[in-house]
Amino acid sequence: MSDTRTNSGVDNVSVYPKMNSWNVEGDRSIVLLSAGNLATTQSVVSVLDERSKAPEDRQPSLLEAPTMFQVARLVGKTLRETIAANQQTGFEQRTFNSTLILGGQIKGMAPRLFLIYPEGNFIEAGSDTPFLQIGEMKYGRPILVRAYDAAMTFDEAVKLLMVSFDSTLKANLSVGLPLDLQLYETDSFDLSKNRRFDVDDPYYSAVSSGWGDALKDAFAALPDFSFDERV
Amino acid sequence: MSDTRTNSGVDNVSVYPKMNSWNVEGDRSIVLLSAGNLATTQSVVSVLDERSKAPEDRQPSLLEAPTMFQVARLVGKTLRETIAANQQTGFEQRTFNSTLILGGQIKGMAPRLFLIYPEGNFIEAGSDTPFLQIGEMKYGRPILVRAYDAAMTFDEAVKLLMVSFDSTLKANLSVGLPLDLQLYETDSFDLSKNRRFDVDDPYYSAVSSGWGDALKDAFAALPDFSFDERV
Repeated sequence: MSDTRTNSGVDNVSVYPKMNSWNVEGDRSIVLLSAGNLATTQSVVSVLDERSKAPEDRQPSLLEAPTMFQVARLVGKTLRETIAANQQTGFEQRTFNSTLILGGQIKGMAPRLFLIYPEGNFIEAGSDTPFLQIGEMKYGRPILVRAYDAAMTFDEAVKLLMVSFDSTLKANLSVGLPLDLQLYETDSFDLSKNRRFDVDDPYYSAVSSGWGDALKDAFAALPDFSFDERV
Repeated sequence: MSDTRTNSGVDNVSVYPKMNSWNVEGDRSIVLLSAGNLATTQSVVSVLDERSKAPEDRQPSLLEAPTMFQVARLVGKTLRETIAANQQTGFEQRTFNSTLILGGQIKGMAPRLFLIYPEGNFIEAGSDTPFLQIGEMKYGRPILVRAYDAAMTFDEAVKLLMVSFDSTLKANLSVGLPLDLQLYETDSFDLSKNRRFDVDDPYYSAVSSGWGDALKDAFAALPDFSFDERV
């Protein structure tokens, strides 16, 4: 799941998707989420796209790489080169930084999920670290840490993402609706299960208002503090 | 409330209080919380302390300033000077940065609460922004934004602080137990209502485990997402 808010200062706020995907039916599904400098991530996606559209003379391509590991290397290399090209303008590197989450599956292999750093290197999710976050991640992290359970259904996982994003939306202007969701079932090679949640989405509204009330009830149910008991 | 964890990298973690206070019975109560570089904040507190202990030749003093606004200016100036002195070593300024929360009351005037920036300037809490946070503040902010209510009792406010800190403790190693609490009642000029919550504190344990369970119940009670309903 990704939000769509981009800003260069609070007086210049726009809506841009931060989720891109490539699908070859029966062969591979690839999804890329981005955080950080928008010019960098748009450029990375354009370069990857050009390579995938003219495979005969632009090797390697996202759509031809033999493994998800090779896809991650290609994306990381493209990201690093894009940032390095901008650096020559004299600004600090971090001005152009971007971090990516890459998930996907290639036929005959297991699905994999990577977090790619601005330097082009990357780490992979695993059973000890089953989810990855990029961007403005701190506000929404406590509920993920507490409520995530590997045995969750897809529908519960979507609910959890919703609650996590909602906590962030309530606390920070740099994250904003609409939210984009992509769901991928292993071996489906199908990315049609995606959804945009807009500001008037009934499920988003139900979770957001329901969560506010549920938190207040949960809070009220905790034992009260009393100074006098132990002073 | 403040935590007590200080680190210079994950392999050098120590316990230091981040709360300092000065009290003159019947005249003034002053509490200072700090985040950021420990050497800076210890130096600031030492300078303020020396001035308050030898008031005859070290004007102005925390204990003699006529208003809380003057106290804030004095603390801000001391902070700025301390950071500037370290800057001359050639490191970047932000290496030595520290941010402070200053709260207190001087007889005959209302209590006031300030957030002091490394530059020495400061903002004041008010009815629209009734609470202030410094340091690793993002994890614990969503619950403050959602559950804070100006009509809360002191005991409820302590419970809310506990839940907010607990969310942070669960998600980030740079914040750690024990937690220090200082409660101040207007016109009391008394700082005896303070408490340290250690790792085995029964109230902390009750809130921490209770909150985990309450969150899971609250989450389970939210309406489930279903992809198929609207696809």
